[in-house]
Amino acid sequence: METDFSNLFARDLLPAKNGEEATIQFLLELVDILTNYVKKTFDRSTKVLDFHHPHQLLEGMEGFNLELSDQPESLEQILVDCRDTLKYGVRTGHPRFFNQLSSGLDIIGLAGEWLTSTANTNMFTYEIAPVFVLMEQLTLKKMIEMVGWPSGEGDGIFSPGGAISNMYSVMIARYKYYPEVKTKGMSAAPRLVLFTSEHSHYSIKKAGAALGFGSENVILLSTDERGRVIPADLEAKILEAKQKGYVPLFVNATAGSTVYGAFDPINEIADICEKYNLWLHVDGAWGGGLLMSRKHRHKFNGVERANSVTWNPHKMMGVPLQCSAILVREKYDVTYDTGDKAIQCGRHVDIFKFWLMWKAKGTIGFEQHIDRCLDLSQYLYNKIKNREGYQMVFDGEPQHTNVCFWYIPPSLRGMPEGVERREKLHKVAPKIKAMMMESGTTMVGYQPQGDKVNFFRMVVSNLAVTQSDIDFLIDEIERMGVDL
Amino acid sequence: METDFSNLFARDLLPAKNGEEATIQFLLELVDILTNYVKKTFDRSTKVLDFHHPHQLLEGMEGFNLELSDQPESLEQILVDCRDTLKYGVRTGHPRFFNQLSSGLDIIGLAGEWLTSTANTNMFTYEIAPVFVLMEQLTLKKMIEMVGWPSGEGDGIFSPGGAISNMYSVMIARYKYYPEVKTKGMSAAPRLVLFTSEHSHYSIKKAGAALGFGSENVILLSTDERGRVIPADLEAKILEAKQKGYVPLFVNATAGSTVYGAFDPINEIADICEKYNLWLHVDGAWGGGLLMSRKHRHKFNGVERANSVTWNPHKMMGVPLQCSAILVREKYDVTYDTGDKAIQCGRHVDIFKFWLMWKAKGTIGFEQHIDRCLDLSQYLYNKIKNREGYQMVFDGEPQHTNVCFWYIPPSLRGMPEGVERREKLHKVAPKIKAMMMESGTTMVGYQPQGDKVNFFRMVVSNLAVTQSDIDFLIDEIERMGVDL
Repeated sequence: METDFSNLFARDLLPAKNGEEATIQFLLELVDILTNYVKKTFDRSTKVLDFHHPHQLLEGMEGFNLELSDQPESLEQILVDCRDTLKYGVRTGHPRFFNQLSSGLDIIGLAGEWLTSTANTNMFTYEIAPVFVLMEQLTLKKMIEMVGWPSGEGDGIFSPGGAISNMYSVMIARYKYYPEVKTKGMSAAPRLVLFTSEHSHYSIKKAGAALGFGSENVILLSTDERGRVIPADLEAKILEAKQKGYVPLFVNATAGSTVYGAFDPINEIADICEKYNLWLHVDGAWGGGLLMSRKHRHKFNGVERANSVTWNPHKMMGVPLQCSAILVREKYDVTYDTGDKAIQCGRHVDIFKFWLMWKAKGTIGFEQHIDRCLDLSQYLYNKIKNREGYQMVFDGEPQHTNVCFWYIPPSLRGMPEGVERREKLHKVAPKIKAMMMESGTTMVGYQPQGDKVNFFRMVVSNLAVTQSDIDFLIDEIERMGVDL
Repeated sequence: METDFSNLFARDLLPAKNGEEATIQFLLELVDILTNYVKKTFDRSTKVLDFHHPHQLLEGMEGFNLELSDQPESLEQILVDCRDTLKYGVRTGHPRFFNQLSSGLDIIGLAGEWLTSTANTNMFTYEIAPVFVLMEQLTLKKMIEMVGWPSGEGDGIFSPGGAISNMYSVMIARYKYYPEVKTKGMSAAPRLVLFTSEHSHYSIKKAGAALGFGSENVILLSTDERGRVIPADLEAKILEAKQKGYVPLFVNATAGSTVYGAFDPINEIADICEKYNLWLHVDGAWGGGLLMSRKHRHKFNGVERANSVTWNPHKMMGVPLQCSAILVREKYDVTYDTGDKAIQCGRHVDIFKFWLMWKAKGTIGFEQHIDRCLDLSQYLYNKIKNREGYQMVFDGEPQHTNVCFWYIPPSLRGMPEGVERREKLHKVAPKIKAMMMESGTTMVGYQPQGDKVNFFRMVVSNLAVTQSDIDFLIDEIERMGVDL
């Protein structure tokens, strides 16, 4: 029997008296919308997005009005709102969505999220989240084993994202070396400086600003042409800072940089950190998953010498957003200092979906996921490295799934290097991207970096991607770019 | 046809070839588990929890093992894991769960969360979350209207919880008065101090520690016996700090304190902030919902004079976790300072469930929710204020839904005030709470406060609660406490 939702309202659902039937019917109707969305997400004949400008959505599409009002809407309208919200959104799980480091739609992870929101609890205490609190402990323990700290010790917490995990690393380093800052403030410490590469994520600089170091005291390190920190530059800048009377505190090594996918040489950086007694943090927000791959984990060599590690399962490992861990080598003395363990009070339950995926795939399932994504990047790299109309942003095989390249339209191919070509080339990727958005067939990111004009940054983290999708992307770029 | 999940694995689900059927069957099977859980949550014959000690869960219950392994588990086992995760958890939506400020299981909010996780995107940019980004803007605009800033201006963002929203308020205040701190660090500013009441949430102190002010420079204000800041004490402490050479920066006024539900007198605090040119933040994490009630919003009188406001719809308004907003009076110049708008890079989509609930209930639906919860607290207060065996922690009607009281077992009723009675009374609430956990019939929080020994803090934020549930709680307390 079809339920008529046009005369039903939120107030008719549970806990309303006799609300059970309407509640179940409403949820099943919603699930029907969601499962259809899931099916279509994996169907390559579906568009990645149906693009509209903000003013179009704000003015209201047919039957879809974003404005809130005093009076309730019927459940029929609510279901339409749900359908339309999905319709005008972006299918981040589509096999041809390559725009972000986080992509894919893992069914087990999705099930985990549905359950998490049904449980609607909080990571506060064992009292109100007994199962989730234990799952977090056990999962962190496994992650810590993979980092491989020699003592077998280590601690950690899931935070609302990589930027906050990185902020934790700076806070904990400061607390370790200058515990009095916690009570007395930064004026109790000397003028501290932090080091991170010019290719690292901006969250390190932001943490420096927020925590009271000052962004100018976050010193950027030079990199080689692959975007990896040059250790000699780190040592030179440490000495320079000391000479000026600053006190070096913290070094961030990136394991999988956002744009190039570069892995900083952790062992060489660790040597310098040991020499000068500095905290070594490894930002593996993007690269962390590679710790699970026997083939690729060598890129993390030396990570066991780090004092802390950021690792976001919601990126490379396809766990739904949000899922980020900060791991710390030393057991924090929480009896003494509970307050510093979390800057949050309540915490969203980010663990269950990850735990459930680990159960369902096993460690080997994650390994296969990662190896497969890296193989696809290799495939793309091999396909375009010598192809007419392409220029790689840097030479050599990709370290991560990032492949950075310029597409050179025929009109620019004969043009000599110089300002005019640079200016024209700078506009190519944005123009192609705009066409992609309009046509909705695929999405890939672009950006400039340093003195390099806009280029495409291709990444793969979605298990649904196949070689044919990589071929499709290249075909689309060429189709859209041929007349530019 | 029943699907046999014992031979199916995660790898057989989409994006696997021909994985569609198994995917839909698996999700429907999960939904069956979830809807059964939802039904039982509202059924008073179901327990609030089925208590186990950590070691019991860690050793593994029958068929439920928390350990992670290298090899995958079958989907049949995954479904068992899901069922057991719910079984050993706590039903925060149960009408007799009164343990936290966040409780309830709103069906529309739940639907919103299921959709959000299916969309699995990020609040990054309009490009990848066009609908959600606009929903956030429109919803913040409505919330800002309710705060009532005279210019009609205002800005805001949803953050991962009230502690982070409060941290934002301190950061923004610092940035407004001492913008050079962002680049040069705290050493570029004088010795700044923050003020907040001794009854306020510890996140203000934590923000002071994290952001480099130092927790000692967060000065605690005295309160009256209802837990409300005494404005004269604020002024005296401002003058004292100035005399010592410190520079007052920021005052937090709490609108709905965690334990007493107290509302600080915002107008009188605002007068002082204006006189001394200080940033006024109103922490309405818990009280914020009252802005939507014509009957109760007078408790926020003066909020339109604040510079920033924290408001957590995930508390009083029954929105699923997490949903917290920080609202700021001045339009932030994001063109100049995008980096300070969010300390996060990616952000979880917290807006959709709230937007959908607002659509489905209307503003008047939230108002009814709030008025009803406050009426129930009034009912509890009236019931116990003169009842034998009860003593109120403070006199007078509750300002929020918090009702704080001691249950005095018969054995203590004749005993004179003094150390022995205090020590015995201190143990009563924990003992009753332990019995509640064991029997699983209801849950309510307790704590000491200042020189007051452990007392019960009753709160209501769940629309499913009725007077009979309040009666049940009192009966349970008396049944469990009679022989103590």
